Amino acid sequence: MNSLKPFTFSKRFPNMPIIGSSFAGSLDHVIPLSYGFPAPESFPLETMVAATELAMKNQGFGAMSYSGGTGPSNIVKWIQKRSQLRGVHADDNQIIVTAGSMQAIDLVARTLTDPGDEIWIEAPCFFGAIRTFNLAQVNLRSFPIDENGIIVEHVEKALIEATLQQKPIPKILYIMPNYHNPGGVNLSVDRRKKLAELAYAYNFFILEDDAYVELSFEGTYLPSIHSFAPERVIYLSTFSKVIAPGIRLGWAIGLSDIINKIRILKTDGLTSVYVQEVVYNVLEQLDIEEHIRYLSNTYKSRKEAMVEAITEHFGDEVSFVSPEGGFFLWLTFPPGVNTSAFVEAAMTAGVSYLDGQHFFLDDEGFNTMRLCFTYCSEEKIKEAIKRLADTYVQYIRTLPMEEAN
Amino acid sequence: MNSLKPFTFSKRFPNMPIIGSSFAGSLDHVIPLSYGFPAPESFPLETMVAATELAMKNQGFGAMSYSGGTGPSNIVKWIQKRSQLRGVHADDNQIIVTAGSMQAIDLVARTLTDPGDEIWIEAPCFFGAIRTFNLAQVNLRSFPIDENGIIVEHVEKALIEATLQQKPIPKILYIMPNYHNPGGVNLSVDRRKKLAELAYAYNFFILEDDAYVELSFEGTYLPSIHSFAPERVIYLSTFSKVIAPGIRLGWAIGLSDIINKIRILKTDGLTSVYVQEVVYNVLEQLDIEEHIRYLSNTYKSRKEAMVEAITEHFGDEVSFVSPEGGFFLWLTFPPGVNTSAFVEAAMTAGVSYLDGQHFFLDDEGFNTMRLCFTYCSEEKIKEAIKRLADTYVQYIRTLPMEEAN
Repeated sequence: MNSLKPFTFSKRFPNMPIIGSSFAGSLDHVIPLSYGFPAPESFPLETMVAATELAMKNQGFGAMSYSGGTGPSNIVKWIQKRSQLRGVHADDNQIIVTAGSMQAIDLVARTLTDPGDEIWIEAPCFFGAIRTFNLAQVNLRSFPIDENGIIVEHVEKALIEATLQQKPIPKILYIMPNYHNPGGVNLSVDRRKKLAELAYAYNFFILEDDAYVELSFEGTYLPSIHSFAPERVIYLSTFSKVIAPGIRLGWAIGLSDIINKIRILKTDGLTSVYVQEVVYNVLEQLDIEEHIRYLSNTYKSRKEAMVEAITEHFGDEVSFVSPEGGFFLWLTFPPGVNTSAFVEAAMTAGVSYLDGQHFFLDDEGFNTMRLCFTYCSEEKIKEAIKRLADTYVQYIRTLPMEEAN
Repeated sequence: MNSLKPFTFSKRFPNMPIIGSSFAGSLDHVIPLSYGFPAPESFPLETMVAATELAMKNQGFGAMSYSGGTGPSNIVKWIQKRSQLRGVHADDNQIIVTAGSMQAIDLVARTLTDPGDEIWIEAPCFFGAIRTFNLAQVNLRSFPIDENGIIVEHVEKALIEATLQQKPIPKILYIMPNYHNPGGVNLSVDRRKKLAELAYAYNFFILEDDAYVELSFEGTYLPSIHSFAPERVIYLSTFSKVIAPGIRLGWAIGLSDIINKIRILKTDGLTSVYVQEVVYNVLEQLDIEEHIRYLSNTYKSRKEAMVEAITEHFGDEVSFVSPEGGFFLWLTFPPGVNTSAFVEAAMTAGVSYLDGQHFFLDDEGFNTMRLCFTYCSEEKIKEAIKRLADTYVQYIRTLPMEEAN
């Protein structure tokens, strides 16, 4: 048809930069520190086969059907029990299994907000959440983090001002309390308590994204924000970090009223019951404590290798908080450095990273960078940091003198 | 906290009746003709195990990772090739794999419409689609089907009127062309062509939901609507009917521009790459043609058993089109009969069905009923229809004389 008329699509699509070449890094010669991936050699491939065999034998027809009502109960009970260890106490009917915690972020956002409502976030903030909130057509406002997580005083001040000026209170405050992506920091217990108080006082929900909680290098765990405000926190986590991301299995925990609304909004049906039953069997067969210990030890060593290499090659040129768990190390360069400016050069030199600006709402964070220490071996990490330092030195030489200091 | 304040949730939640007891039918004594499920004994359980073994061996890390860009290419190529047999010709980049076709319905609706836009549907219409469209906050309008599918003249008349009166043209016309759920009918080729013309002329998209296309009793296939209007049709299908619904794997095919927008809106990430790789291996190992033939033959026999039992027990009291494929038989009772009125009595008697009103927008379809002939054995179907007839006779006795005729 030559006469095809233009069609007016939904207005909900934001004009956001796609995270492009810096994220891909899939060329053979590139060591990808940009990926936010677990160590691929940690995936329990053989256990997946055994677990599938068991699922087909034990849950058989059930695992392949739509299943009834709210889905398989085994994995929900596992999540329920595990969450108690993290200070999240909930009934079965307060838990919904989702396609990764990413789907939960979307469903919670659209359950609690209408277009034009406010969601407040951290700066920096996981770019996937920013993108999802933009597609929900809400207004976003961000608050800086320091080495103890979001600076709660800024949030409280903004809430007071909004109240005085009769401006909108947020419906959601999105927080990643443990091993922040990308900041690598933990939210202090005092701030958790204070946020919980604010949520009750100002009547908003905290969306507590606890994707990395299990990956504690020292086996220590801070109380969840949920434990201080169970009626005003929706708690998210995922199997992506402790089993594998490709299975796409996460969950949300909250008041049953809210979880029921989320079930209605989740029009794709139950999350693959097949995957739920297989993963439940994996959890039964794997000795998950041992597996998590192995992951944490591996990641701790890799982080240490990265920190050592950064100290060796960058010296005082960068600052960072050494993370106590999780996936990410967040570098801050001197003001005037623009990490977006040498993404391509780094790729050519054989290393990829994520330039910091993707984690901010506005034109901010140009002198920051996210490095992932979990995907590559220690050897590769050391080589990658060396390449990154070489690239950086080349870049610095191109800067006017006053900006480079 | 005693002082918990009420929270204002999103306005998007519709006040729709939940399909309740009639759908559940999970009591031991109940033969569920309400379920829209495949025959559970048809699920390829052993092949799933072998396919998982292969996926862990061959696709290993890839199957457990986030994978790159648009996801595993194997299954997309399979879908591409299969679709050609159904008259749908598309490049790789025109195909997106979704969590069942249900997720595709949601993503397409929210890609093409904003709240307040129009979506036009069939009457009756798959209740899952109605629910999804309501959550997208669009205005719905329905057009009746007859034994040849949607009555296109009614649609054309409405388009002409809307144009003359400067009222909104729909953004989407949602059509199930083959073995309609719940109607059991096929859309005639002439009407397919006419709809394609209308889509171009009035510049709307046809959402062609072809979930049941593979289940042809006689191995015959009508050309897809997509083949007549590739630039104004988004074509959906699913593995739910030919492999198993519990895996949750479907797809959408359309212009690459639209598929790219859908990828952005699909913020849950790629559909489980693990499931995609496993199912690809199932398709390789299973002899899918043979499997589909087995399903079609099984379902044909079950349909015939159901038709025979209905003819025996109901005689001329009901009318229906005998479906040439798919899952469903759609009964129309005399005017004045309300099938919602004896759902509970039928459950007590040991049979469940879906009362027709759930498939309509307004207070319509009270004298209709959807029966699924695929889930239960012929023996059970015969017994179920007998129980249904007994219940119906009891119900009819409660009606005033003039309504019962």
